[in-house]
Amino acid sequence: MSDRIENALTLALARATHGAPSQLASALRYAVFPGGARIRPRLCLAVAAASGEELPALSDAAACSLEFLHCASLVHDDLPCFDDAELRRGKPALHKVYGEALAVLTGDALIVLAFEHVARVASAAPERVAQLIGVLGRAAGSPHGLVAGQAYESEEKVPLARYHRAKTGALFVAATTAGAIVAGRDPAPWVRLGETIGEAYQIADDLLDALASPDEVGKPTRRDAELGRPNAVLSLGVDGALAQLQALGAEAAALVPAEGPGSEKLRELLIKTLERMVPQRAKQSAA
Amino acid sequence: MSDRIENALTLALARATHGAPSQLASALRYAVFPGGARIRPRLCLAVAAASGEELPALSDAAACSLEFLHCASLVHDDLPCFDDAELRRGKPALHKVYGEALAVLTGDALIVLAFEHVARVASAAPERVAQLIGVLGRAAGSPHGLVAGQAYESEEKVPLARYHRAKTGALFVAATTAGAIVAGRDPAPWVRLGETIGEAYQIADDLLDALASPDEVGKPTRRDAELGRPNAVLSLGVDGALAQLQALGAEAAALVPAEGPGSEKLRELLIKTLERMVPQRAKQSAA
Repeated sequence: MSDRIENALTLALARATHGAPSQLASALRYAVFPGGARIRPRLCLAVAAASGEELPALSDAAACSLEFLHCASLVHDDLPCFDDAELRRGKPALHKVYGEALAVLTGDALIVLAFEHVARVASAAPERVAQLIGVLGRAAGSPHGLVAGQAYESEEKVPLARYHRAKTGALFVAATTAGAIVAGRDPAPWVRLGETIGEAYQIADDLLDALASPDEVGKPTRRDAELGRPNAVLSLGVDGALAQLQALGAEAAALVPAEGPGSEKLRELLIKTLERMVPQRAKQSAA
Repeated sequence: MSDRIENALTLALARATHGAPSQLASALRYAVFPGGARIRPRLCLAVAAASGEELPALSDAAACSLEFLHCASLVHDDLPCFDDAELRRGKPALHKVYGEALAVLTGDALIVLAFEHVARVASAAPERVAQLIGVLGRAAGSPHGLVAGQAYESEEKVPLARYHRAKTGALFVAATTAGAIVAGRDPAPWVRLGETIGEAYQIADDLLDALASPDEVGKPTRRDAELGRPNAVLSLGVDGALAQLQALGAEAAALVPAEGPGSEKLRELLIKTLERMVPQRAKQSAA
């Protein structure tokens, strides 16, 4: 699955970089490659397979668009006016290399590309285009998507659950539901699976921030305590956070249809994804 | 037409602001209202009418999406890492009021909304969704849209024609071609009309920058000379720039179908739009 996703991303990105201003083209590649765990596109493809995928090119397109939105949010979130991050995925944050102007534009271009790409490929199944654009738009925008999630950090009082749902959960819900839509299925039964992964991911991220070193995660840590931001480890302790993570993993696995093509693989992916989320140090600290 | 556009924008924006973080919601309204001349949505609606518009709600949606992309580009272009503008449309630039973080997010949210909104409304005519998203995506993104245009300013050598086509022309081409698409017509014959208006607009903008005072245009002027950016007045003189503007106006008027519903109104709009583009001082200076 890994090669499939990297190849699809390479091809999709080429359409935005070919003939583009050279610095922008270079920054776009820097933002997307090398990637992180590509959890969202993997999840989308696994749900598509478990839903009886019939148009693999459309599944690929949706998977790429999810990753482009994710990369866009990382590039913008790292800007000095937000997290002012030095590192991302083990290398200097994009604005440290290309400057703030190109970082803003790179994020913008990736957002546009996400919509453009899936619509172009989906024109073969026109009745699914609006549905896919709707799913991506809700996940990325305002009032309940990534942008809204980030904007809660500018509010005096942050509504914690809504903040996490928007900033982390929305794109996981988009990943599972888009997987159903590309296969021509009803997305509704897949919403909760996306939510559980989003909730688990948020707790894992809190564990990482509280316990890992910057070298281990390739980005600054202890930021939540420093910036006074909510964090599950600060409120539940390491053991409490780990227990909640485990419960969410069990719920996610139970949400996968018992039988059918791809069900077993999807369950495996969920277990591996959640296992990989838990930082080494949290496992040691709980042992 | 003015009420129609403002009402459509109000309704479309409400979907992004209702339930959103309050600062973001407020900033979104600040970015869109009160507007400028709304040239792009007017143009889209006029072409739709001249093309035998049959789904006015879809025309409205495309018109709104064009304006959202335009507003997003204004908000991002005004950021300190780009033009560092104090004023926009006669009031403080958005980041001066809401800060840089919310300015980045407001632009992001408007880009997302542009795609989400037109796709939602167009689901009544599914075969047109992908086409509309494609037109908006090409106009907004990389390699040939607004974002690419802005990114040329980060290059050592700026290819002037491509820079203007991307930064100014692309969204006018989107306006005219989207007008044809919402009416179920072939967009190809409308490309050149969008290009001529884009070229005229660029020259008018150069005239404004070179001749007007900040009070007259509600934003800083003389920026091109200060920043060493290309400008038609600096290269052709005021008379040369005005002559070119006039020639483009004649070409645009000749591109409108001679007869048919809405042709006369579209021609009137073009004349009014181009007339309004020429700054008072340029007329006096040429007289």
